[in-house]
Amino acid sequence: MKLSKKIFTAILCTALVGITAVGTIAVPARANTTNIVQSAKEQTYKKPKYIFNFIGDGMSYVQVNSAQIYKGVTEKGGINLGKLAVSQFPVCGSATTQDSTSFAPDSASTATAISSGVKTHSGVIGYNADKQTKPESITEKLKKEGYKIGIVSSVSIDHATPAAFYAHAVSRKDMYDIALQLADSNFDYFAGGSLVQPNGKNGDQKSAFEIIEEKGYNIVDTKEEILSLNSESGKVYAINPELQDSQAMSYDLDASKDSIRLKDFVEKGIDVLDNEDGFFMMVEGGKIDWAGHANDARSNIQDVIALDEAIGVAVDFAKKHPEETLIIVTGDHETGGMTIGYSTTGYNTAFNLLANQDMSYVAFDELLAEYKKGTTADKAKIEDVLPLIKKHFGLVSPSNAASAKDSALVLTEYEYNKLKDAFAQTMKDSSERTNNQETGILYGGYEPLTVTLTHILNNKAGIGWTSYAHTGVPVPVYAMGEGAELFSGAYDNTDIFNKLVALCELK
Amino acid sequence: MKLSKKIFTAILCTALVGITAVGTIAVPARANTTNIVQSAKEQTYKKPKYIFNFIGDGMSYVQVNSAQIYKGVTEKGGINLGKLAVSQFPVCGSATTQDSTSFAPDSASTATAISSGVKTHSGVIGYNADKQTKPESITEKLKKEGYKIGIVSSVSIDHATPAAFYAHAVSRKDMYDIALQLADSNFDYFAGGSLVQPNGKNGDQKSAFEIIEEKGYNIVDTKEEILSLNSESGKVYAINPELQDSQAMSYDLDASKDSIRLKDFVEKGIDVLDNEDGFFMMVEGGKIDWAGHANDARSNIQDVIALDEAIGVAVDFAKKHPEETLIIVTGDHETGGMTIGYSTTGYNTAFNLLANQDMSYVAFDELLAEYKKGTTADKAKIEDVLPLIKKHFGLVSPSNAASAKDSALVLTEYEYNKLKDAFAQTMKDSSERTNNQETGILYGGYEPLTVTLTHILNNKAGIGWTSYAHTGVPVPVYAMGEGAELFSGAYDNTDIFNKLVALCELK
Repeated sequence: MKLSKKIFTAILCTALVGITAVGTIAVPARANTTNIVQSAKEQTYKKPKYIFNFIGDGMSYVQVNSAQIYKGVTEKGGINLGKLAVSQFPVCGSATTQDSTSFAPDSASTATAISSGVKTHSGVIGYNADKQTKPESITEKLKKEGYKIGIVSSVSIDHATPAAFYAHAVSRKDMYDIALQLADSNFDYFAGGSLVQPNGKNGDQKSAFEIIEEKGYNIVDTKEEILSLNSESGKVYAINPELQDSQAMSYDLDASKDSIRLKDFVEKGIDVLDNEDGFFMMVEGGKIDWAGHANDARSNIQDVIALDEAIGVAVDFAKKHPEETLIIVTGDHETGGMTIGYSTTGYNTAFNLLANQDMSYVAFDELLAEYKKGTTADKAKIEDVLPLIKKHFGLVSPSNAASAKDSALVLTEYEYNKLKDAFAQTMKDSSERTNNQETGILYGGYEPLTVTLTHILNNKAGIGWTSYAHTGVPVPVYAMGEGAELFSGAYDNTDIFNKLVALCELK
Repeated sequence: MKLSKKIFTAILCTALVGITAVGTIAVPARANTTNIVQSAKEQTYKKPKYIFNFIGDGMSYVQVNSAQIYKGVTEKGGINLGKLAVSQFPVCGSATTQDSTSFAPDSASTATAISSGVKTHSGVIGYNADKQTKPESITEKLKKEGYKIGIVSSVSIDHATPAAFYAHAVSRKDMYDIALQLADSNFDYFAGGSLVQPNGKNGDQKSAFEIIEEKGYNIVDTKEEILSLNSESGKVYAINPELQDSQAMSYDLDASKDSIRLKDFVEKGIDVLDNEDGFFMMVEGGKIDWAGHANDARSNIQDVIALDEAIGVAVDFAKKHPEETLIIVTGDHETGGMTIGYSTTGYNTAFNLLANQDMSYVAFDELLAEYKKGTTADKAKIEDVLPLIKKHFGLVSPSNAASAKDSALVLTEYEYNKLKDAFAQTMKDSSERTNNQETGILYGGYEPLTVTLTHILNNKAGIGWTSYAHTGVPVPVYAMGEGAELFSGAYDNTDIFNKLVALCELK
C-alpha cells in the first residue's frame, strides 16, 4: 500500500467498524464521525487560517441544480447545465437536518447545529435542548484563538441564522436581545440587513444601533462608506442602504443596478477581516428560504445565483491562499419541497419560461396593493390586472392567446379559473377570505393571486412545490481547500461543527 | 506538507483550475473530472478486484432519508433516524442526471450514462446520441479483463437499467432483442425478474428462454435451485419464482415470508461470481421507481430498505476483502418529486402513519378490481370499500371517526370528498373517465381511488409528490472501499463511468 493512502484508509477502516455494526441494520451504534475526523486529521491537515462558511437558507440540491439548469437554458439553450462556482468544489457531502423536535426543522435550531454542534428545539438559538445551558459556538471558539469573525446575511442581521453565530436566545423572536448580544460580541464585521427590533418588541427600548455604536462599532449605511471599508475600519456593522421587506436586502431579482450585493459584502469582509491571525466569515443567503416559502422559483434561483457569486469571491481569495483557506457551503434545511418535475409537464421542463418573471412575489404584491387601493372588491375585475400579469410573468389569458410571447405562456382554462378564484380571494380583506384546508394548500397564507401566478409559471416550467414550510430533505455540504475532504460522506448537520472543531484543534 | 496529503492536493489543485475559470461564472470550461481521477489515481489506488454497483431506480436523497426517518420513527420513536448501511459509507458524492434530450431523463439513457459514460436520448440503451455508434460499457470492458459479471434486478431483467449493462438497443421497448443479447453476452450471473417479451412483441418468436439455455445458461426458477447455486453452477439466469407485475419481483411490502429477496440474489451472486480474477455486480432496486411513479411512499420506502439490506450483504463481503472491494451506490434519477414536507402538515411529519399501509398500490388495485367485478358503476357505493380502505391504509371516513386507530387517520371532509370523486372515477371504465388537466394532476393515469389514498396517507404523514414521472433532482453517489474517495464531489452521472474506467485502468 502506498503511503498516500493512509488518510482514507483511516477513514474507511473507522467507517467500516460502523458499517459492521449496521450490516444487519439492527445495532444502534453509529460510526463516531468526530473520531473519524480526528484520526484522519492527526495524520494530515493543517488548521485553516481563513474559513468561509456559506449558508444558503432553504437551499438543498434541488435549488442548486435549478440554478444550474436556469443558467444553462437561458445562456446556452438545449440540455446544458450552467456553471456555478459551488458545483466545481471537489467535495460534496450530504447532511441531515432534523432538530430535537422536528424532521422539518427551523433555521434557529439548524443554524445552532452548524454553529455549535448541538440539536435543540425549533426556534431556539445557541442553547442546548434543555434551553438552559449554552454550547460554545465555532465563532466564539475561533475568536479566542485570535481569528477575526465576520457575519454577513442578506436578511436582517438579528435573524435566526446569523444570530446562531454570535448570540444565545431561547426564542428567536427576542431580536432586541439578540441585537444587544451583537453589540457585546466583539466580533469584527457584521454586514447585510438591518435590525427588526432596534427599539425592542414594544418600541420603547434604547436604540440598539446606539448601543452597538457605544460598544465601539462603526455603523455604516451608505454605499460610499461601505465601499471604503478596509482593514483600518475597526469593528464594523455595514447595513445595505437598499432594504426591502423585514429589514432584509432586496431579492437579487429586484435589486437596483447600483445596489450593494451579497458578493460586495464578502469582498469588503475580506478587506476588513484579513489579518495575520486569520478569520472566519459566515455568509447567509437568507432570501433563498423566503422565496421557497412563497413558492417563487424565479426569485429563489436568482438568490442562489447571488450566493454563488459571493462564493466566487471566496474562491478567488482561496486561489491566493490555497493551503490556508477552507470554504464550506451548505444549506440549513430545504424550504418549500421544491422539485424539478411536475405532473402536467412529465418528462419535460421549460425553465426558459421563468425568465418572463421580472420581479419577486414581494414586489408584485406591492403592485397589487396599489391596485386594491384604487378600487373596491365589488368593482375589481381580473381583466384590470391582466396587463400587469402579462408584463411581470408573461402569462396571458386564453382569450388573449394571440398576444403571448410564447404559446406555452397562455393560461389553460383550468389555470385561468384558478387565477380567477385567487383574484377574488385577493380582493377581499384578509379577515373575509376563505380559510379552509383547500385554501391552505392553494395559497399557504400568501397573497392568493401572486402565489397562484408563481405556481402556474413554475408548474409550466416543470417545477413543483409541496410545502410553504421547511422540509426534511437533506442538504449538500460542498467543501474546498484545507481539510475539505473531511466533509465528504453522509452525516448529521452537527458534524459540520464537529469536523471544524477537530480540524482547527479547538476545545 | 505531509506526504499523505498528496492525493487530495492533486484533486484540489486540479479542481481549482476549473474553479479559477468559473469564479466569475462566465467561462464555459469545466474541470475535467477524468483527469482529476487519473492524476489522483496514478498516485494512489489499486484496481479493485470486486466491484458492486447498486442502483436505486428513482432513488435520490429524499428516498434514502425517508427510509431513515421511517425506520427511526417505527423502531425508536421520537426524532431519530434509523440506520441504513448506505448512509454509513465514507463518501457521498452528488450526480446530475440530465440526458441529451431532457432534464427529467429516463432510465435507459441514465443507465447508459452510468454503464457507458455517454449522454444519449431518453429511451435509448447503450448507443451514443447518434443512435448508430455503440460505446463499450464498463461490464464489456471488465469482462475482457477477466472479471466475471453479474446483473441483478428486482424488475424484469430485460428492463432498461439492467439492459444498459449488457445490451445495446435503440429502443428500450425492443425487449426480445435485449433478451437475445443477454443470451449472447456470455456474462456470468443474471438474477431477479423474468422477461417481458420472451416470444417477441407479437408472441411469435422462438422462446428467448430456450435461446438463453442454448447459449449455455442454467436457468433456475425455484427456491431450491436458486439457494443451491454456487461457483460450480456455470452461467446462470436465476428467476424469482414469486413475480408480481410486469415480470418483476414483488414489492418488498407484498413479498411472502419465504420469498427470495434482493439481498438473497446478492448473496447467491457472490457465490456464483467469486473467483481469482474478480467480479463486477450491478444490482438494481427497480421498483423504488415504480412506487415513485405511483406516488406510493410506503412501498417506495420498503423497497429502499430492501435495497439497503442487499447493500449490507456487499458490505459484509467488503469486510472480508477490505482492500480489494469497491461498492458504489447511486440512483439513476429521482422519481415522483418526492419531498419530506407538505402544505397541510407544515413543520410536522408523522411517518408513523405510513405503517398503517400493509400492501402496495398494485396489490390494492387488485382488491378493487375484485370489487368492480362484483358490482356495476350505478350500484357501487364508497361505503362498500371503506372497510378495505381502513384495513389496508388505516384511513376512516369522518362519520366513522370513533373507529380510527389514531385520530390522525380520520379523513377530513375535504379529503373524503376527494376520495368520493376518485371512487366515482375508479368505478367507470377507463374510456369513460374524465380526462383533463385536473384529473391528470390528481391521478396521473393511476387507479384514481388508490392514488388518492396514497396521496392522502402520504400527505398526512408529511410527504409530498409533484410528479408521476422522473425529475431533474440530483442523486447521491455513495462509495466505500478501494478508490471510494474518487467519487466525492458534485459531477455528472457519466463521470461515475469515467472514474471507474480510470480507477480500473481500462481503455
